[in-house]
Amino acid sequence: MSKLVKNAVGRLVPTEINGESVVPFMGVNKYQPEGRRHAPKITSNANFPSDGNKQVASLKDALIKAGLKDGMTISTHHHFRNGDLLANMIFDIAKELNVKNLRWFPSASFPCHEHLIQYLEDGTISHIEGSMNGALGRFTSQGKMSKTAVLRSHGGRYQAVQDGDVKIDIAIIGAACADPFGNANGLYGQSASGLLGFALADSEYADKVIVVTDNMKPFPCIPWQIQGNYVDYTVEIEKVGDPKKIISGTTKVTKSPDRLLLAEMTAKFCEATGIIKEGFSFQTGAGGTSLSVSNYFAEIMREKGIKARFARGGSNKYLVEMLNEGLIEYILDGQTFDLDGVKSMAENPNHVWTSPFTSYNFHAKGNFAQLVDVVILGATEVDVNFNGNVVTHSDGYMLHGIGGWQNCLFSKTVILPIPLFRDRIPVILDEVTTICGPGELIDVIVTERGIAINPLRTDLIEAAKNSGLPLRTIQELKEEADKICGKPQKPKLSDEIIAAIKWVDGTVIDTVKKVM
Amino acid sequence: MSKLVKNAVGRLVPTEINGESVVPFMGVNKYQPEGRRHAPKITSNANFPSDGNKQVASLKDALIKAGLKDGMTISTHHHFRNGDLLANMIFDIAKELNVKNLRWFPSASFPCHEHLIQYLEDGTISHIEGSMNGALGRFTSQGKMSKTAVLRSHGGRYQAVQDGDVKIDIAIIGAACADPFGNANGLYGQSASGLLGFALADSEYADKVIVVTDNMKPFPCIPWQIQGNYVDYTVEIEKVGDPKKIISGTTKVTKSPDRLLLAEMTAKFCEATGIIKEGFSFQTGAGGTSLSVSNYFAEIMREKGIKARFARGGSNKYLVEMLNEGLIEYILDGQTFDLDGVKSMAENPNHVWTSPFTSYNFHAKGNFAQLVDVVILGATEVDVNFNGNVVTHSDGYMLHGIGGWQNCLFSKTVILPIPLFRDRIPVILDEVTTICGPGELIDVIVTERGIAINPLRTDLIEAAKNSGLPLRTIQELKEEADKICGKPQKPKLSDEIIAAIKWVDGTVIDTVKKVM
Repeated sequence: MSKLVKNAVGRLVPTEINGESVVPFMGVNKYQPEGRRHAPKITSNANFPSDGNKQVASLKDALIKAGLKDGMTISTHHHFRNGDLLANMIFDIAKELNVKNLRWFPSASFPCHEHLIQYLEDGTISHIEGSMNGALGRFTSQGKMSKTAVLRSHGGRYQAVQDGDVKIDIAIIGAACADPFGNANGLYGQSASGLLGFALADSEYADKVIVVTDNMKPFPCIPWQIQGNYVDYTVEIEKVGDPKKIISGTTKVTKSPDRLLLAEMTAKFCEATGIIKEGFSFQTGAGGTSLSVSNYFAEIMREKGIKARFARGGSNKYLVEMLNEGLIEYILDGQTFDLDGVKSMAENPNHVWTSPFTSYNFHAKGNFAQLVDVVILGATEVDVNFNGNVVTHSDGYMLHGIGGWQNCLFSKTVILPIPLFRDRIPVILDEVTTICGPGELIDVIVTERGIAINPLRTDLIEAAKNSGLPLRTIQELKEEADKICGKPQKPKLSDEIIAAIKWVDGTVIDTVKKVM
Repeated sequence: MSKLVKNAVGRLVPTEINGESVVPFMGVNKYQPEGRRHAPKITSNANFPSDGNKQVASLKDALIKAGLKDGMTISTHHHFRNGDLLANMIFDIAKELNVKNLRWFPSASFPCHEHLIQYLEDGTISHIEGSMNGALGRFTSQGKMSKTAVLRSHGGRYQAVQDGDVKIDIAIIGAACADPFGNANGLYGQSASGLLGFALADSEYADKVIVVTDNMKPFPCIPWQIQGNYVDYTVEIEKVGDPKKIISGTTKVTKSPDRLLLAEMTAKFCEATGIIKEGFSFQTGAGGTSLSVSNYFAEIMREKGIKARFARGGSNKYLVEMLNEGLIEYILDGQTFDLDGVKSMAENPNHVWTSPFTSYNFHAKGNFAQLVDVVILGATEVDVNFNGNVVTHSDGYMLHGIGGWQNCLFSKTVILPIPLFRDRIPVILDEVTTICGPGELIDVIVTERGIAINPLRTDLIEAAKNSGLPLRTIQELKEEADKICGKPQKPKLSDEIIAAIKWVDGTVIDTVKKVM
């Protein structure tokens, strides 16, 4: 590991990861990228089937034709979530072919990928760059992965591919529906997941692209969320995912009184400060609390006769109902969290699929995230400087990915409704275990015992002052939690860096240490 | 001008045009491109307005902010066809700012751009790379443009931009509808033209991108046929185009008995040879004869209970009727030729907008054009080797662009219904004035006095043999025309090359000479 330097949020970060130079975080909007985007090789139709039929007999065939070999970077996407069957198949084949030292570059990994630990152990996979939810995160936290993990936001992943920070050798794109030419979508079939935006960068920039489906249709597969003109090979297999686990069907509004209170206070704050107004926009995410926020928003909007210009998904039943009721003009959706979302996206032209490029890429000429008036996010920890953590727990284990969280911080107002403590462990700390987002971008912390507004947001402090809402300083909230729970213990961590956390611009904002 | 070499169709072509090296045509599917696609500079959201509002006060402001200066390449698109007002405005501003020596890179130019001849004369514009319909073509043919014109197909233009053969400094994209972030479409508003596919490459690869509309909507403009994430500046002006000339409304089926005969023979040929079958696909284009072919196809399909999987547009009323009647499952559309087409595209999800990337780009991993079973095209001339010309007349004047013609030659069967002579000038010659497409890709010539099948298509000759259709050799047809019209005169041309004709892979297939 290279020398460590202190970055703009005061964290010691390396200047080299896995042998490649990296730039320490320089502050929000400070890093100026140079150079040019990654330029894929020029291909020629002359080297592809004249009838456009790129279908090969099996996934193994496709991987062999794509030139699978030691040391390659293999990418997958997470639209099948915990129902994904494809990633395990790919590395089973790699093992069978005795290919070693692969970098796996998923847009996220899930508990269903625990199967791959054996390949991290035997050297088939050298390391993972991508969010690790559950067992793989625990494995990595224990220092068992031979190289350093790199975690990026959804937008950061697009940026890394676009800018050539990560060069993908083979992208494997699982699709609910495809044609032999390679056009694909996530809308129709037993493995419908809604859209395929997380694989967009992979399709555009990877050297070789394989589309795998269990629902091959004659050309044209419409809509082509993935464009076949980028695709080298197509494969039909029996099953790309487990439908029950792709769409959980359990995305329900919380019944917990504590969480309902947080949701209600959040909505009231938005009402009191004038954020909920004609033509506003919001993103609430998919957790139980967030879903409840949408519902409270809907009540306020109905009462006042207010319409939102758009809401950002992750979509679900509740957001779709608001769209159908006319409370929202458009849903701009990055992923569908239930079948109501999938159906609405397939049928309603005002339920629009977006991608990490349109929504989240920071190395563009703007993105949609910054146009959202208010975003409601979660966090595992925040600190008294409003810095937020979403990847590690207070015991140091890295069990979650960043998702779109960092990207959404560019919204005009960022609100985190969080409990003051979880299992008697305070959520507001002097210092978060891992900084995923700098405090200057986090505006409001809503807890069951009060609301803290970032001192930078004097406008919000002014707007909320006569609202009757329980306004507190974040320091006060922290002290109250400490009084109840006792001063929290620091996690026991070694000096060994097991993961780097990238900021949206590709710089390193923090690292994650091995748990002792 | 550099030395001339004989290319694979026997034409003498230069190895250098306007000071840049070019590759002579090597034969269909022979040229293997090397290197990588053009890589735009990495940009950062940090340098764009945090609220996503990129609107500036005027087109002049936008051009100045974009850094307009001598020698730049300025691109526009032709979706407004002969109703375009924008290109003239742009160069009026360039003139006002005393900027010189600009390369104009339109996707096509029309008679409405005759206004720009003054700027070609005074050095504001050095030359045009793009199709020139009408006055500009005549001006160029007379050797009055100071540099050499370069003509490309729609797909070839995408290829040139993608591969960096042409680097666009400033792209100006006129849109019927846009938002201040730069998302844009051609579907809604007084200047609705249907889609904006011809500006896609420009948006993706140009250094600076300006979207100009007369119909600015609040974010989000949906659908975003052009993605605002690529856009630097947006401008609202009073009028981007003349609606009456954007959509002519005069696209009608021919009433000429000669043309109706050609259309009927073409359809009968497709019926007899089994091309019209369940699930087939076709593209007929927009001329009066082509429209009639669609109608004859419809009759045959109704009679036999056949459905087409898809038809490629240029769409129009007749194709839309076939879609609505269920004779076609999908229209894959590159441009809408009338208001029925625009409306259908806006409302019917099975009327899908395509782009030169999906449909025509040859430096990809395949494209849609090659998936089409039969395409009906026109030509100004063909020769006894089935080579086709679409850009010059037999008097040598270059008065037309290539459009998608070259790209469509990759369809499984290419049929040219053409009269044996026009104004007593034979259309079938020993040698075409300009080779735009090599004979090996042109399968059938349908004339009022007989049908000639390319000897390479032994399958079609076999299939047509007992059809009762008047099959002839192309030599026989030519001789018959010569007997009636007399041996045609060769055009009087100087040695001066005024334009180069690029093939779909960027190589030079022919040149156009100055008319004496």
